[in-house]
Amino acid sequence: MDMNVISSPNSEKKGGCTTNCTLANKYLTSLPKKLKDNVVNFALETKKLGQEDPRRIFHALKVGFAITVVSLFYYFQALYNGFGVSAMWAVITVVVVFEYTVGATLGKGLNRMISTCIAGFLGVVAHYLADLSGDTGEPILLALFGFIVASTMTFMRFFPKLKARYDYGLMIFILTFALVAVSGYRDDEVIKMAQQRLSTIIIGSCIAMIICIFISPVWIGAEFHFLIASNIHKLANFLQGFGSEYLKMKDEKSKEEETFRQQYKSVLGTKTTEETMANLASWEPSHGKFKFSHPWKQYLKVGALTRMCAYRVDALNNCLNSDILQVETPEEIQEKMKESCKKLSSELGKVLKEVSLGLKKTKKTATAKTQLRETKKAAHELKMLLQETSLWEKFNLLDVLPAATVASILIDIVDCVENIIEEVHELASMADFKSMDSAVCPENQLSQIIVVGEVTTTDKNNHGPDLKGPTPSVAEPEIKSLQ
Amino acid sequence: MDMNVISSPNSEKKGGCTTNCTLANKYLTSLPKKLKDNVVNFALETKKLGQEDPRRIFHALKVGFAITVVSLFYYFQALYNGFGVSAMWAVITVVVVFEYTVGATLGKGLNRMISTCIAGFLGVVAHYLADLSGDTGEPILLALFGFIVASTMTFMRFFPKLKARYDYGLMIFILTFALVAVSGYRDDEVIKMAQQRLSTIIIGSCIAMIICIFISPVWIGAEFHFLIASNIHKLANFLQGFGSEYLKMKDEKSKEEETFRQQYKSVLGTKTTEETMANLASWEPSHGKFKFSHPWKQYLKVGALTRMCAYRVDALNNCLNSDILQVETPEEIQEKMKESCKKLSSELGKVLKEVSLGLKKTKKTATAKTQLRETKKAAHELKMLLQETSLWEKFNLLDVLPAATVASILIDIVDCVENIIEEVHELASMADFKSMDSAVCPENQLSQIIVVGEVTTTDKNNHGPDLKGPTPSVAEPEIKSLQ
Repeated sequence: MDMNVISSPNSEKKGGCTTNCTLANKYLTSLPKKLKDNVVNFALETKKLGQEDPRRIFHALKVGFAITVVSLFYYFQALYNGFGVSAMWAVITVVVVFEYTVGATLGKGLNRMISTCIAGFLGVVAHYLADLSGDTGEPILLALFGFIVASTMTFMRFFPKLKARYDYGLMIFILTFALVAVSGYRDDEVIKMAQQRLSTIIIGSCIAMIICIFISPVWIGAEFHFLIASNIHKLANFLQGFGSEYLKMKDEKSKEEETFRQQYKSVLGTKTTEETMANLASWEPSHGKFKFSHPWKQYLKVGALTRMCAYRVDALNNCLNSDILQVETPEEIQEKMKESCKKLSSELGKVLKEVSLGLKKTKKTATAKTQLRETKKAAHELKMLLQETSLWEKFNLLDVLPAATVASILIDIVDCVENIIEEVHELASMADFKSMDSAVCPENQLSQIIVVGEVTTTDKNNHGPDLKGPTPSVAEPEIKSLQ
Repeated sequence: MDMNVISSPNSEKKGGCTTNCTLANKYLTSLPKKLKDNVVNFALETKKLGQEDPRRIFHALKVGFAITVVSLFYYFQALYNGFGVSAMWAVITVVVVFEYTVGATLGKGLNRMISTCIAGFLGVVAHYLADLSGDTGEPILLALFGFIVASTMTFMRFFPKLKARYDYGLMIFILTFALVAVSGYRDDEVIKMAQQRLSTIIIGSCIAMIICIFISPVWIGAEFHFLIASNIHKLANFLQGFGSEYLKMKDEKSKEEETFRQQYKSVLGTKTTEETMANLASWEPSHGKFKFSHPWKQYLKVGALTRMCAYRVDALNNCLNSDILQVETPEEIQEKMKESCKKLSSELGKVLKEVSLGLKKTKKTATAKTQLRETKKAAHELKMLLQETSLWEKFNLLDVLPAATVASILIDIVDCVENIIEEVHELASMADFKSMDSAVCPENQLSQIIVVGEVTTTDKNNHGPDLKGPTPSVAEPEIKSLQ
């Protein structure tokens, strides 16, 4: 007993020491481990970012190059003149103006140059006016001018149209005006300072813009174009995959297909991105197939319709997971619906892929419109099937509801797709895309064609007339009746 | 005949002249008219922007005031020292750092101060190192340092986490390093310049931050909080209006209700806005009911679930306009469905309003959970109705599909709402919201309670236990069977 009493605190103490030691040890060993983990994670993410888009690495090197060039200019100017304040503006301008895409760089550069020019001029004028009013009045007038200009320009930054394109310019306006007007120099020095600031800012902006445009440029217009096309493509992928996926048993569904199917979700939230891209794209000069006055606003319309279609695709996706629709569809219904739904879904996917492909290649295509006729036929068949009373009356409504809901959403999507086709067609006319006809190319050939290259179409004239007016068609009355 | 021949060109000429004159006249009179129109439009938009949110006007005045203060500081400093280059940094800092919301201003100000501090120190070190290598080696080493720092920092701006919070800081880092390292001054001057730049930037940042915080501040945290609450409220409005709207004839629908109903659409595209707001809110100190470590990330979760619910509400809205669902629902079905759909829809609206209200008041509420039980009962009834074979078998599937689709979407929304309630409850726990019970207050009383004020609850303990654990309930098994 005694032994026990004595040994017990001992062992506890020992145990306590051991625990503490282990904890301390763990903490000490975990610190470098954590650091190591962080470094490894950082390296991995760096690698991932670089691999995802190697142009990011080029961009970083370009910025380094531009800053080196302008810094050396500043360094030598400072050495020779002994006073490098003005040249400093060139360094600042390059750092601030140089953005990833050409559109953003041009937007900032032009905003900065024009604003500096106007505000510098007004600042000099304000300085003279204040100077006239004597030593007492000068600071009062200058403060008043500064207050009015800063307040007005700040409020103007709330105007949505100005904010979208000239936000940076308005900020620089306030900055330059305040610096020039309130500089407190003598008159001749103010003008000299304003001139120096303007010229160095022009030098800095031009260095940034030239390097951005001429060394592996990233055109945001082209990015925007391909974003819109790839969004349509993602919906097409979902629809082509949906037919088979929907009719599979739960455990058959593979994870790969699952992630493939979820791609469309990124389309749901791109509104803000698209608006920013359209704004920046409008700063860019003619590049590749995109002219200076390329109809970027029309892309926003196509984007909005694609998003509306994506909401419906989301509803379709919910049918795969929804509680109420999780009932097992009766086999007879499944049998009958299977083919119709699969057909319509994959037809829709095919049409959207065609639209996306035409857009990607900046080509006018009538194939989508022709294919849409097939799609409408498939929708009509599905609708007929829904009206077949003999088929449905045997079952409980709740059992057939999943199949019927899927069918009705699919029929709904036909309208969305038609709207997309219309707006893409309008876009092709506005942007003067050339005609092509990819109907002659089998699908696997199409995917091999390089996106930016020209395509020789052997069957150009067969479907040519379709592009010039409303689609002439024998099947038209039948299609109309579906709408 | 001759007369005709002669007179005809004359009259044509006269007509031509008249047309030209009229055109020229029109052009001349239209110019000032256009200008006038522009001015009027501008004035109207200014008025609208000011009325929508008078804090915009305050913000403009605040910026004007801050710039006046710092400009005068600069002006007198320049007068006395004859050389105002360092003080200039204070003006620049105020203009660049002063943003509309406290979070944005603090984020920029802190980024600017800390980056300038670190980069300035490293710049001085780089300058010394380069100095050691002699006259030839100096510019080479400086260029190399500049290139490495600029490239690395530019690439780091691509890291999503760094971009979200420290993008501005990384840019300022490049800027300061380049300016200090490459300044070309003698050693003692470099340190003096770095010190001056740092102190004036701290002065500028502090002026901007103090004026932003202490004169009618706009807290982005509070804005974010109310955005999330009002998004939920918008969905509630739609659902409460939907029941009656859906069953009205087309020509009965008023335009007012139409626009009221469309409010929810703004919820579909707020993802990017919410993410930005959450980031900026995390810079803000404790204000009102929001602490420094308020769980802003949890708001993103609630926001995402609200958006998911909005997609389903969008599907519901499509039912009102869809082609396939535009068939007239048979009267018997309408009669039977009317009450159930209306009940479920308005129950859902009520629950969401309760959630939104609790959130707005930063109160923990169990009422929503209690109400959800009612909602689930209503959903259960609707589901039973869908299973009543005797009701449906008389009709063509296509005729009853609209009603059935609406019902199934409504039942689907119950899950969404439950998820929202869960996450809002989690948020209330994380943020230590106080308990309240609004079930005792009739709805019109509730709307009179000032949002920020405290509410005395007379019936606090009745529903209190609900908050502490999983909802104990007799109706539970029945509800579970619905899921």
